[in-house]
Amino acid sequence: MAEADMEFWFDFSSGYAFFASLQVDDLAAKHGRRVRWRPFLLGAAFQATGMRGLSSTPLRGDYARHDWARLARRAGVTFAPPATHPIVALPASRIFYWLDSRAPEAAVEWAKQAFRAYYTEGRNLATNEAAAELAATVTGLSADELVAGATSAEIKARTKESSEEAVQRGIFGSPFLVVDGEPFWGRTGYR
Amino acid sequence: MAEADMEFWFDFSSGYAFFASLQVDDLAAKHGRRVRWRPFLLGAAFQATGMRGLSSTPLRGDYARHDWARLARRAGVTFAPPATHPIVALPASRIFYWLDSRAPEAAVEWAKQAFRAYYTEGRNLATNEAAAELAATVTGLSADELVAGATSAEIKARTKESSEEAVQRGIFGSPFLVVDGEPFWGRTGYR
Repeated sequence: MAEADMEFWFDFSSGYAFFASLQVDDLAAKHGRRVRWRPFLLGAAFQATGMRGLSSTPLRGDYARHDWARLARRAGVTFAPPATHPIVALPASRIFYWLDSRAPEAAVEWAKQAFRAYYTEGRNLATNEAAAELAATVTGLSADELVAGATSAEIKARTKESSEEAVQRGIFGSPFLVVDGEPFWGRTGYR
Repeated sequence: MAEADMEFWFDFSSGYAFFASLQVDDLAAKHGRRVRWRPFLLGAAFQATGMRGLSSTPLRGDYARHDWARLARRAGVTFAPPATHPIVALPASRIFYWLDSRAPEAAVEWAKQAFRAYYTEGRNLATNEAAAELAATVTGLSADELVAGATSAEIKARTKESSEEAVQRGIFGSPFLVVDGEPFWGRTGYR
């Protein structure tokens, strides 16, 4: 990682990460940083912390749904994830890391469009095929090629390692920023 | 509750609540509100959510300690809770509700001084006697009178009901603000 990077760790299936994805470019520019997008799966962190997803946690789930709607009004965006939210965002994460291994800019564009489609249009991204179908429209690559690349042994390992790296570095939630070694969980960094 | 109140729910044993206690008056004044201080015990909420205290949660505990130190630097205050932190803050909460039943201003002053002594001087507030000793210096009442009042059946019930009210109203964390029916968990409200 370059010294001047701002690491943006997120789970595609995190509602708060969606809102962060809308702000992180401006936040980084304000501080003269380049964003390094790092999808990971919260599941590994949940095993370490004993927590579980917001949506399935009593009281906190209700609060999160209220807060997401409030944040959407403030941001002027629609918040309408699929009825099946939250999903396990492994397909979207693997597509990210496959694109990242070929053309990092395409990976970032994929991340932004995946967030937008999932959270504002309720687009299904739960399967490799569904995620690849959307990624094909974003990248111009074929869905078959995307599935093959994203499910290669190398990319499966790369994606798994990202979640392990997160836990090893104490990254237990989403979104999570790291700047000059300073960790910022959740909405803390977004003022 | 008067319409123009801002409810400030907190557990005395919550590090984030300490920082909120330093800011809540200014925040309320900015919005033309009067703060209604509402101590409760997070334990009841933890039973509902399946969570546990930050300090004993892997990864999150380390982050919280780092974040508290960072917040203290920014606020220009010392952050030095007792080595036994976190405690069960039942004695401090009961003293609050006993004072509140007699003279609400004294209860608020007690809350502020309890936060200050515990978090900046590492003062022990884990027992009725230790908490009453500090409360005596704040209120001018005798420690014996404070213990007797705070452990009366009426005040024990009032304190327990506050924690139950919190859970019933979806208040699962500390600090937690409620303004015009809008809930704000954690540092969300403190910008």
